[in-house]
Amino acid sequence: MRRRAKTQPELAAFQGELGAFSQEAARRLLGEEVPVLPLPRFEDIFKSLAEGRATAAVVPIENTLAGSVHQNYDLLLEHDLPIVAETNVRIVHNLIALPGVPFSKIRRVYSHPVALNQCLNFFTRHPQFEKVPFYDTAGSVKMLAEEKMTDAAAIASAVAADIYGARILRRSIEDDRRNFTRFFLLRRPEYARKHPVQADAKQQWKTSLVFTTRNVPGALFRSLSAFALRDVNLAKIESRPLRGRPWEYLFYLDLLARADDPVTQNALRHLAELADFLRVLGSYPKGD
Amino acid sequence: MRRRAKTQPELAAFQGELGAFSQEAARRLLGEEVPVLPLPRFEDIFKSLAEGRATAAVVPIENTLAGSVHQNYDLLLEHDLPIVAETNVRIVHNLIALPGVPFSKIRRVYSHPVALNQCLNFFTRHPQFEKVPFYDTAGSVKMLAEEKMTDAAAIASAVAADIYGARILRRSIEDDRRNFTRFFLLRRPEYARKHPVQADAKQQWKTSLVFTTRNVPGALFRSLSAFALRDVNLAKIESRPLRGRPWEYLFYLDLLARADDPVTQNALRHLAELADFLRVLGSYPKGD
Repeated sequence: MRRRAKTQPELAAFQGELGAFSQEAARRLLGEEVPVLPLPRFEDIFKSLAEGRATAAVVPIENTLAGSVHQNYDLLLEHDLPIVAETNVRIVHNLIALPGVPFSKIRRVYSHPVALNQCLNFFTRHPQFEKVPFYDTAGSVKMLAEEKMTDAAAIASAVAADIYGARILRRSIEDDRRNFTRFFLLRRPEYARKHPVQADAKQQWKTSLVFTTRNVPGALFRSLSAFALRDVNLAKIESRPLRGRPWEYLFYLDLLARADDPVTQNALRHLAELADFLRVLGSYPKGD
Repeated sequence: MRRRAKTQPELAAFQGELGAFSQEAARRLLGEEVPVLPLPRFEDIFKSLAEGRATAAVVPIENTLAGSVHQNYDLLLEHDLPIVAETNVRIVHNLIALPGVPFSKIRRVYSHPVALNQCLNFFTRHPQFEKVPFYDTAGSVKMLAEEKMTDAAAIASAVAADIYGARILRRSIEDDRRNFTRFFLLRRPEYARKHPVQADAKQQWKTSLVFTTRNVPGALFRSLSAFALRDVNLAKIESRPLRGRPWEYLFYLDLLARADDPVTQNALRHLAELADFLRVLGSYPKGD
């Protein structure tokens, strides 16, 4: 008799408190009702998926204003957890207070320093507000609720207001609306093998990879030629220091191509001839 | 009668407290006795030089373990303050306590979180020590002295121990000795024009530049061809998000070449044909 595989119920790990922008990304990637596991540090997210406590991990990889989340690039290299999807979340910052707290009573505004810095025009228009740095955006709403603060507000997502029973007093107070964060959905390798990503024929794909060049002149240029000569386009290049080899670098590339396409396969074989080290981190449908 | 130009006395701005690794870089770049202006934020450093309060600025640009200091890449673009020199400082972390405080009495160790994280093997060998995050390495030694702490130590540079009259109990406790930080020396443009950098004929040079590509396939590859086709080598490439154009990037390059060399001039002219935007940030002798 064949044993039926026990299916572990879905649980998506992300960094931060309930209501973080990562939770919004998790909902977009896995459905509104997806059960989530909020954890304090990025390392914890990768570990919880690798060890099987979570079935999926949702991690931010870059923001259009702040740049790449370099720690997560390093963690992608340290773990074997393939990228199976991406999504872009528009970062909308809202001024949030407890029910019954009017705008006129607010004196202090709590949020993560990055969020406070992305709402400077709002603070210039309202000099009566003191900016108070806090460890997390959603965590600052949670703290308002726990401490029952009636003279303070927080800057966070609409989901955070919803979760902690608070109210949005001003919507979208960020300086620059072209503020998006790109998130990856990671799975364990065996899950990714058993559940190949389905997409229609028109879907654009991306492939993420990491490589090191031999330390010779023109090495990066020649590495990129593997793609340029085959009209495989790059969406992004990112460099990180190579541990133990001062002033040498790892390169992370995002290709606008599907990894199992024959042209991409040829390009990857060509790159492998030139590279000291090469690993494909995942191939996934391009996000909106 | 010709008026004699008043010469402003040298004053080198850097981020952090007296005794920071940036001060060690300032000494290497400008001499052991250089007067310094420690300021709390990187923005303050650039501003103090631009506004003429300081005559020089010393800023970290990358670390061989932690990667680039992206904020300083952004600030180089925002200001017109040419890079005129670079130096690499080996980051040696020391366990420092007040005079008379023995190793056996220490219970807590203060330092910047990055420094604490670079000494994990030391903390594993000495589980009796509690790691306490502090805003600055040298600042944690200053705090020991101000608070007259007899059961605590700090992790910081030898210069910090010297400045605050403290003592080194253990030298070089960092996990990885291949830990270097690269610093730039910045001047005002008129100073750089009046005082061209002198170097002997054998000196290797670097040129740093920033550019954006047209948003067309293969744009980065073609941009790099301006250098590869002329055997001008790259030492580094770094990308940063381009504000207002989500998912497009600025590229920072370091060439192993002198900007006023005819081959480099040709390569820069070639890149200018391909780039939407191009600026040379400085040309300077390669550091040790």
